[in-house]
Amino acid sequence: MRTQMQACLAGRGGEVSARARAAELGRTYLGLDSTGRRNFLTVLARDFDVDRAVVDKAVDAFHRAVDPASRGDAERALRAALEPGRMRLLTQFNGLPEGIKFLVDMRAQLLEWARDDSLMSALEADMKTLLRNWFDVGFLELRRITWDSPASLLEKLIAYEAVHEIRGWQDLKDRLDSDRRCFAFFHPRMPDEPLIFVEVALVTGMSDNVQTLLDEAAPVQDPQTADTAIFYSISNAQKGLAGISFGNFLIKRVVDDLTAEFPKLKHFATLSPIPGFRRWLDGELAKGEGVVTNGESARIADLFADPDVLPPESGATLAAVLDRPDWQRDEATVKVVKPILMRLCATYLIDAKAGKRARDPVAHFHLSNGARMERLNWLGDTSDKGLRQSAGLMINYRYKLGDIEANHESYTGDGKINVSSYVKAHQKSTG
Amino acid sequence: MRTQMQACLAGRGGEVSARARAAELGRTYLGLDSTGRRNFLTVLARDFDVDRAVVDKAVDAFHRAVDPASRGDAERALRAALEPGRMRLLTQFNGLPEGIKFLVDMRAQLLEWARDDSLMSALEADMKTLLRNWFDVGFLELRRITWDSPASLLEKLIAYEAVHEIRGWQDLKDRLDSDRRCFAFFHPRMPDEPLIFVEVALVTGMSDNVQTLLDEAAPVQDPQTADTAIFYSISNAQKGLAGISFGNFLIKRVVDDLTAEFPKLKHFATLSPIPGFRRWLDGELAKGEGVVTNGESARIADLFADPDVLPPESGATLAAVLDRPDWQRDEATVKVVKPILMRLCATYLIDAKAGKRARDPVAHFHLSNGARMERLNWLGDTSDKGLRQSAGLMINYRYKLGDIEANHESYTGDGKINVSSYVKAHQKSTG
Amino acid sequence: MRTQMQACLAGRGGEVSARARAAELGRTYLGLDSTGRRNFLTVLARDFDVDRAVVDKAVDAFHRAVDPASRGDAERALRAALEPGRMRLLTQFNGLPEGIKFLVDMRAQLLEWARDDSLMSALEADMKTLLRNWFDVGFLELRRITWDSPASLLEKLIAYEAVHEIRGWQDLKDRLDSDRRCFAFFHPRMPDEPLIFVEVALVTGMSDNVQTLLDEAAPVQDPQTADTAIFYSISNAQKGLAGISFGNFLIKRVVDDLTAEFPKLKHFATLSPIPGFRRWLDGELAKGEGVVTNGESARIADLFADPDVLPPESGATLAAVLDRPDWQRDEATVKVVKPILMRLCATYLIDAKAGKRARDPVAHFHLSNGARMERLNWLGDTSDKGLRQSAGLMINYRYKLGDIEANHESYTGDGKINVSSYVKAHQKSTG
Amino acid sequence: MRTQMQACLAGRGGEVSARARAAELGRTYLGLDSTGRRNFLTVLARDFDVDRAVVDKAVDAFHRAVDPASRGDAERALRAALEPGRMRLLTQFNGLPEGIKFLVDMRAQLLEWARDDSLMSALEADMKTLLRNWFDVGFLELRRITWDSPASLLEKLIAYEAVHEIRGWQDLKDRLDSDRRCFAFFHPRMPDEPLIFVEVALVTGMSDNVQTLLDEAAPVQDPQTADTAIFYSISNAQKGLAGISFGNFLIKRVVDDLTAEFPKLKHFATLSPIPGFRRWLDGELAKGEGVVTNGESARIADLFADPDVLPPESGATLAAVLDRPDWQRDEATVKVVKPILMRLCATYLIDAKAGKRARDPVAHFHLSNGARMERLNWLGDTSDKGLRQSAGLMINYRYKLGDIEANHESYTGDGKINVSSYVKAHQKSTG
Repeated sequence: MRTQMQACLAGRGGEVSARARAAELGRTYLGLDSTGRRNFLTVLARDFDVDRAVVDKAVDAFHRAVDPASRGDAERALRAALEPGRMRLLTQFNGLPEGIKFLVDMRAQLLEWARDDSLMSALEADMKTLLRNWFDVGFLELRRITWDSPASLLEKLIAYEAVHEIRGWQDLKDRLDSDRRCFAFFHPRMPDEPLIFVEVALVTGMSDNVQTLLDEAAPVQDPQTADTAIFYSISNAQKGLAGISFGNFLIKRVVDDLTAEFPKLKHFATLSPIPGFRRWLDGELAKGEGVVTNGESARIADLFADPDVLPPESGATLAAVLDRPDWQRDEATVKVVKPILMRLCATYLIDAKAGKRARDPVAHFHLSNGARMERLNWLGDTSDKGLRQSAGLMINYRYKLGDIEANHESYTGDGKINVSSYVKAHQKSTG
Repeated sequence: MRTQMQACLAGRGGEVSARARAAELGRTYLGLDSTGRRNFLTVLARDFDVDRAVVDKAVDAFHRAVDPASRGDAERALRAALEPGRMRLLTQFNGLPEGIKFLVDMRAQLLEWARDDSLMSALEADMKTLLRNWFDVGFLELRRITWDSPASLLEKLIAYEAVHEIRGWQDLKDRLDSDRRCFAFFHPRMPDEPLIFVEVALVTGMSDNVQTLLDEAAPVQDPQTADTAIFYSISNAQKGLAGISFGNFLIKRVVDDLTAEFPKLKHFATLSPIPGFRRWLDGELAKGEGVVTNGESARIADLFADPDVLPPESGATLAAVLDRPDWQRDEATVKVVKPILMRLCATYLIDAKAGKRARDPVAHFHLSNGARMERLNWLGDTSDKGLRQSAGLMINYRYKLGDIEANHESYTGDGKINVSSYVKAHQKSTG
Repeated sequence: MRTQMQACLAGRGGEVSARARAAELGRTYLGLDSTGRRNFLTVLARDFDVDRAVVDKAVDAFHRAVDPASRGDAERALRAALEPGRMRLLTQFNGLPEGIKFLVDMRAQLLEWARDDSLMSALEADMKTLLRNWFDVGFLELRRITWDSPASLLEKLIAYEAVHEIRGWQDLKDRLDSDRRCFAFFHPRMPDEPLIFVEVALVTGMSDNVQTLLDEAAPVQDPQTADTAIFYSISNAQKGLAGISFGNFLIKRVVDDLTAEFPKLKHFATLSPIPGFRRWLDGELAKGEGVVTNGESARIADLFADPDVLPPESGATLAAVLDRPDWQRDEATVKVVKPILMRLCATYLIDAKAGKRARDPVAHFHLSNGARMERLNWLGDTSDKGLRQSAGLMINYRYKLGDIEANHESYTGDGKINVSSYVKAHQKSTG
Repeated sequence: MRTQMQACLAGRGGEVSARARAAELGRTYLGLDSTGRRNFLTVLARDFDVDRAVVDKAVDAFHRAVDPASRGDAERALRAALEPGRMRLLTQFNGLPEGIKFLVDMRAQLLEWARDDSLMSALEADMKTLLRNWFDVGFLELRRITWDSPASLLEKLIAYEAVHEIRGWQDLKDRLDSDRRCFAFFHPRMPDEPLIFVEVALVTGMSDNVQTLLDEAAPVQDPQTADTAIFYSISNAQKGLAGISFGNFLIKRVVDDLTAEFPKLKHFATLSPIPGFRRWLDGELAKGEGVVTNGESARIADLFADPDVLPPESGATLAAVLDRPDWQRDEATVKVVKPILMRLCATYLIDAKAGKRARDPVAHFHLSNGARMERLNWLGDTSDKGLRQSAGLMINYRYKLGDIEANHESYTGDGKINVSSYVKAHQKSTG
């Protein structure tokens, strides 16, 4: 295998032959089991790294270069020396019939193994460089996906949808109806594979509940009268492109397209999950440090008929309520916990940080794209997943065209969380 | 302008906004005159080079890194530091609607200015890196071009043909007839612009004269009976892609396609110009060092009726003959000079070197692709250009599928000129 | 409405305006309920029939014409006079955006009403003339349907499949797998609507069981090794094209296409239902005239444990067996009834006629296309429908390329049922 | 041949085989020379006419039918009997790969021979019926033709252009520039053959000169600012479709398309030749009956220096002036003849009739489409053809959307020539 790799890199028999050999090597890789593939990648990472002797020599030359021109040459030479040999082989794999998909999938595999293996990690970094270059957004094609799209493509939407599971072909058909839109980015050499896709509902007023939005029995609306486009699902489709971001460009392009098609559209917003809320909340409640006020705690306690089963700590009480099956259907429970959860969720979204970033990953994505937290929606997602992740809450992030740049700047620059007064108001103590 | 560039690089307002700004900057560039563009590129090259302080720091860190893992990180950091800031801006131009064509044309311009300007030269080198990456052959699409292709595309063939001028639409139509083939490589984001194209004639026996091949009055042959595919013209179409080679891949792909379509095809050869022959010959003759033998010299002298007009030096005599208008139509002249020119041309092709490479650029291209010099053709191209460049001689390079790799190796490795005994035989002294 | 129709026919305002008015009329029709549509069509049929005064005059002129030239003119004039005015209006509906689909669906409606309404019947006959002309097979396009076809088209296959119900998207996907083929005819102005489609399995040996063929768990075979193409389902998709036959052309074209793609294919056969068998058998059994022999009858009687429940007549006994749930799973039952049912089915297929035609409609279709009855398959279709229609039996019709024309001739000319000796042998008494 | 034809009609071997045989017959026809083809068509016309015995029997049955239902049946039976057998064979030719083009070209041939041959004429009439049916405008596709269209298609425009000759590829490219439009109708089974095409210029103000309009050196205008679309050329492309009219639909569709693309367009007009003017004028002048007044005659006479060369009759004098080379460049001549020719041309256009139709064929076409004669243009076409056909005059026909229907009615109903007061004014005597 190593010999074959060397032959490719030596360009023996010419570049055409080297590509042919790389293609053969690629087919070999595809025929291997997991252990074989790991060996293959290990050889590639270890034996075709930068040549340290060459680098050291280039660094020496760099130090000796003094006049501007020779320093420029020395820099370029050093840069070249620092490019591992395996980069060339990775590039050659592009000669496979579906070469670029091959590389994307190879990186998906590497990402898994890179967690605890520095060789894999270095190779993965090289692949990311290569793929980031090749998947420059300038090469991507925005395509609308409709019910007239190939079944083989639609099937992939069902598989890749990561936010609100598509429950079958009828659900999918509804999501492609005349009052819905679906757009995806494609790479010209992977024309059958979406890279990322977004699902949009054209509605009147800002949607507050995803089950209503996805109700198969709901009547189709006239999209020409809609004033709001709701981006209710954005899914990355290729694990191997993790860390190479297209979502911001996708939202911008889709807003442009929709504006051209529907001049009456005035508002662009998401209906988004808050995937980290319960995890954060459970952590806070476990600490028992008073994230729930005494007054709140007392009101929650009243929900328990038998004081003997009352959990000893305040936090645990709320947790216990949320553990009850169908708690959200019980009127008395809701009356008590709704203001408390709304307050806590607003606090999580606004104050919980990871460094300067919002802690919630979906919040971070939209804030860094220039959106604003617009409205919290009580029981916006009552699916099992929705209850489990965010106690059923959802949020609208709003993209106001004139504010996007400033919002982006203040968030990425100063870590400012842009938030409406409406959301902010939930933070006030409920007593 | 510099401020605008900085804004793009700072990513102010987010990557989406940066792209929009880069696009604006690109449109500004297109609106500039030559001086303005040169200024623009100068600013880009000078003010957005690598940050030397950052590089020096990265080199220091590199020296301090000792254990393998930290050395790997230091290498990657140093590589990143050595990438000039302008690379990112160049990449952002790809967001223009025809961004990649924009960059290709910008490099075409830079190549001109780079000859005597080291700043331009450095920027040009960056662009080459970028474009080589994006124009990886794995992304290219081979398309057959026919008379059913768009007129706007065919018009470009007329403009770009670099070997045998296309004299108009009828000539072009003939070159796309049923016994001809034309193939080109395209990039998916430049779908209307051929990168390189090749014209092929399907014939019986190896063609020896390009005027016969391109004769509009000649009858169309049945391609199903052809045994030989003659590649009679290969033209690069994009100046801005100079130095990024596709020709070898093109020939390989076309041979594969033709083999599949016409199972009776057995031979693949070119009918090629020898563009450097006369320039070399004139140089040799000017030296007057006996490249023409005494015997030859005497025979040439006999062609001059009046000894008074006889040029004093032997070489000059041959030059004087070739300066006569229509010398090639004069039987007596041809009888004398044909063996001499064939000998000299074989010598030029086989022995004239530029380092280890064949001196003739077309010879170098085909030899490095694994072809062999097969046959010299007397008066193979009697056009003005043909007479001026190569005294009317042409050559067939032959691609014998089983020998291509070995030929490539021996040429690129040892500088061996692969040549048939038939061509070699011309080298023997004519007395 | 009548006035609008008259305006169209008068061509008031020019042919362009007449078409625009007809389109409007068409949209009016689409907006009507069933009663309204029936009125609409009644007006069209009654008030825009041939003008009898004009016809009578043309007949007179025809009688007066004696010399050949004037007789020719008189014939043409009479032919024109006999064309009802409504034909022109029907033609004008073709100007609707989906005009031809409009007409096809209108005829589907008419066919229903024509059963007991001579006005409707006359209008339906006109439409058939028009549509037969427009759906000439020369205009149809054969397209392969794959899993890459639009979901909106595939959905129609599920709806239109008339032989073996497609149970969902996975079943459909299996029927489009690499060892399957599906082809349909399309009209260029109804590009999203299949007219007729056929499903083919590429197998080794002639299939004898449709459940096996459609088993989702069965492994995919390599189609390159298949020697037999089984046409296991042919469905007409447009009710409005009833009586306009494409099936024969479809089979011919698909055989040609498959032969070109798979040179190893040697046999072409169907695996067909025998939809009329049980209906015929039940009728015969009801007559009680000895279609079942005494010996057979006795053996069947033995299957009944309690003689008290034994039906009094011989025929009824067999009917009673076939009414038992899951009779086909009972070994003893099968042992007795298999030879009897095979004999009766062969008799039905070979001897039951409707005039000179085979009584079974599927048999008639394939025999008139030149196929031969090849093999009866015991329990070839154990679905509810299969058991109900044909006691689980299926038949292979074989298309032997060299015999098709002769078979067609002998069947359509003399009513000869072409049948293999293998099928014929089943007719022999089972004692 | 007759036998082969009979085999097709008998449907021997089934309809599939009949089609195959018809295709073979078609290929035979294509291989014949002119005499052979004439024989072929004669056999087809003579031996496959209606069967008179069958017709006579159907007429008898028709007379005997009295009640409505049986009369309806008798009518249909008679109609069927009156359809010549050859119609079925003509239909079968549609099975040829390019069957419909085959039939169109066959009719083009028949139209030539039909002039003096009643058999050919009858066959031609059948073909017209068939083709009119198949080329129903509802089946046609309007396509814009651009410089990106296939060269093989554009080449046909050059060949088929019937009004203002296209002088080469550059002229064609100019006619497809951004301020021009070209549209054509296509039949889905003849996708590479335009049926009729129109060339449009987007201009400001109504064009008065076709040389200016087609000037290759003229700058391209911004089509977004144009207020007028000038239809300066409409050409039928298929001789075999003579008498089957698409022009009216084409103009309507193109007006709709242009209106949608360019909301600022307000006027739609032609710049049309007056092809019959000189022929009519020469006839009138030859009669010598005073179409030129005495006063006019005297003024023309003054243009002749030498009274001896003066033609004796008044009419002849004008004819003599128009025979002078470059008369239109002579200021004195123009001063005298311009008002006279404008008067005579207005008279020709308004008063010269062929029955109720305008005598000028182009006038008849546009008037029957609902246009109005808007403006006469002096020296609107100074090409040889323009001077020869219409003394250089051209006319604008204007399509005013609100008046089209009424104009059509008054012209086709009452023969009213719709004409502007501007054109009418030219009719006043010039003294």
